[in-house]
Amino acid sequence: MAPIVDIHTHMYPPEYIDLLSTRTDLPLVRTFPSSPDPRLILLESELPSLQRALADPSAPLPGRSLTKHFTSLPAKLSFMARHGITTSVVSLANPWLDFLSPEDAGPVAKRINESFEAMCVAHPGKLFFFGALPLINTPGTESAQDQTQQTILTAITHLTTLPHCRGIILGTSGLGAGLDDPRMLPIFTSLAAAQLPVFLHPHYGLPTSVFGPRADDYGHVLPLALGFPMETTVAVARMFLAGVFDAVDGLRMILAHSGGTLPFLAGRIESCVVHDAGLAAAAAKAAGKGDGEGERVRKRRTLWEVLRQQIYLDAVVYSDVGLKAAADATGAGAERLMFGTDHPFFPPVGEKADGADDEEWESVQWNVDAVIRAFGEGSKEAELVLGVNAATVLRLDV
Amino acid sequence: MAPIVDIHTHMYPPEYIDLLSTRTDLPLVRTFPSSPDPRLILLESELPSLQRALADPSAPLPGRSLTKHFTSLPAKLSFMARHGITTSVVSLANPWLDFLSPEDAGPVAKRINESFEAMCVAHPGKLFFFGALPLINTPGTESAQDQTQQTILTAITHLTTLPHCRGIILGTSGLGAGLDDPRMLPIFTSLAAAQLPVFLHPHYGLPTSVFGPRADDYGHVLPLALGFPMETTVAVARMFLAGVFDAVDGLRMILAHSGGTLPFLAGRIESCVVHDAGLAAAAAKAAGKGDGEGERVRKRRTLWEVLRQQIYLDAVVYSDVGLKAAADATGAGAERLMFGTDHPFFPPVGEKADGADDEEWESVQWNVDAVIRAFGEGSKEAELVLGVNAATVLRLDV
Repeated sequence: MAPIVDIHTHMYPPEYIDLLSTRTDLPLVRTFPSSPDPRLILLESELPSLQRALADPSAPLPGRSLTKHFTSLPAKLSFMARHGITTSVVSLANPWLDFLSPEDAGPVAKRINESFEAMCVAHPGKLFFFGALPLINTPGTESAQDQTQQTILTAITHLTTLPHCRGIILGTSGLGAGLDDPRMLPIFTSLAAAQLPVFLHPHYGLPTSVFGPRADDYGHVLPLALGFPMETTVAVARMFLAGVFDAVDGLRMILAHSGGTLPFLAGRIESCVVHDAGLAAAAAKAAGKGDGEGERVRKRRTLWEVLRQQIYLDAVVYSDVGLKAAADATGAGAERLMFGTDHPFFPPVGEKADGADDEEWESVQWNVDAVIRAFGEGSKEAELVLGVNAATVLRLDV
Repeated sequence: MAPIVDIHTHMYPPEYIDLLSTRTDLPLVRTFPSSPDPRLILLESELPSLQRALADPSAPLPGRSLTKHFTSLPAKLSFMARHGITTSVVSLANPWLDFLSPEDAGPVAKRINESFEAMCVAHPGKLFFFGALPLINTPGTESAQDQTQQTILTAITHLTTLPHCRGIILGTSGLGAGLDDPRMLPIFTSLAAAQLPVFLHPHYGLPTSVFGPRADDYGHVLPLALGFPMETTVAVARMFLAGVFDAVDGLRMILAHSGGTLPFLAGRIESCVVHDAGLAAAAAKAAGKGDGEGERVRKRRTLWEVLRQQIYLDAVVYSDVGLKAAADATGAGAERLMFGTDHPFFPPVGEKADGADDEEWESVQWNVDAVIRAFGEGSKEAELVLGVNAATVLRLDV
């Protein structure tokens, strides 16, 4: 029987929840008398409902419920058993450690990564993890920045000593200036040297103004359904345009949510590059030079080549339409796609929630169905996507 | 021989250029001693380079060159002949009339639509057009708003008297609050009653902050390649979530750039709707009522149903990967896709521009190649996408 591997599945260790409970800025965790579970507030658009709920006990609760699925290892294992998942590569959920102070980031990352490693050790073959890096959004002075970078490189070295670490999870803000920031290059280079793939995952979405004055009427749909994948797409496009993939050719990235929208927009991005007069002039100028920059320009790989050489996509796209595009964009077959659930987000709600401990999650089923519709039940491609690719690429002993 | 119909092709009539030349705010047109053609400045991100070019004659020119392709009917016809295009459904390019005063919008729209009609009359069977509506971003007083709405309804009636009008082109801002604004409903209802499809086209993109501090290094790539399609996606998702498609079931929309990213994200949007606790609670509450709202909620169509019943997509996506997803998202075959060129945007640049009057445009060829790769040269599906669908849906006598 082919393995089923979930490479997109999150957990908050207890110390992370404790941390969020003491904060007054986003992200934060709050408890309310009317709710058995604490609430996690991530988005700026949730702040008004937080204020209302703090002032009025009968107001709707803000954010999302931090059920045991977010924090309990037994709940994760039970979820896996219910859905036939052989192995999970767990990762801290957003917003990771972006919000920490320079002093706290390193020690907190170390504690969290050791906590994940201990979980994996206790369940051999069932659990691996993507580590968290102490990347923070505090520009600070140049020497403070050097210190932050040193902290991050030390954390990468630490991860190489943890036998169940199979990569790192990364947001899009980097050191506060995005992933096309030249200061990210030593970090990507170090990750490539350590053979740690980067699982790129959104958190900040898009500015709320984009969603218009009626956005609140639509629940969390617009920031989650559109903001998240668009954030990922912009982040990767910026890396591509800055030449990060060329500069660090050992870098391997796994993009959340099947690349956001990258498979669909890759053609348009390529066309806009080829048809940009300013870029064409700069490229012509650089190509005329005998130096390294000219060499780089002459060798420019297309986005399609980068997708097929350095990028993997998870299969969290909730439709065969999207999944087929993800497969087509990254290779001849389905060899660069990896199944994921996004657990513990998107539990059954309303009438569909039966409250049982081991209920089936429709959100998982949609992604399984997408694989079956796109590639055929029991097909070689389906087995690749559901587990074999992850086992191979991430060297999982499943 | 099957017709080739271009439904995404823009033109600025001379009176529109004159209008932009007198403006001091965006959008605007300026001439520079070093350039034979005037320059069109559309994006906020282009303002610094405009300032530099006005101050320093040797600085790079801002915006894009308004070549004859933007303004000359003979150039349009020559472009069509060069690329084997039988018929074009031309439309005003963004930003349309959003920026006009309430007094000017109606008369300018009328003049422009009559100008397009005259072009079509002069070239029977070769030219049709999507009209421009006097939609403006000036909220104003309630009576001013009523006046604006009346002006728009009058413009729709006027369009029904122009024999070559086959729909309207629409931006995403509507009356300044987006297309999910309830004040848009009478307009959509009137368009549906007049059997005028809406060609939805982006212009505003995303806030420049999204693209990060190095965005200028990448030319216009990020706002054009990502901002545009994301704007379209957000606009349609907002309409869907507001129930506009249910409320106006005669509304037909043609989405630019193959729907932005909608085909790829439709699954995620549906999942986010189904898994939103707040929306589920509101739906359960409404479904319990005996009123019209309960009826609407019980009948909620999925986004997939709306895509297959009320939405058409152009085929301007520059890859077979995207085009196949667009086809899969909107129906069993390719029956809701329509070829387009986006002329006069994306002309050949740099070494690829030979300067000849009738040079071949690579941007056009990419979209033709996408159709051939996705559906096979000479296949029934390819013929549908390249022209037959447009001829049928838009009732073109080609």
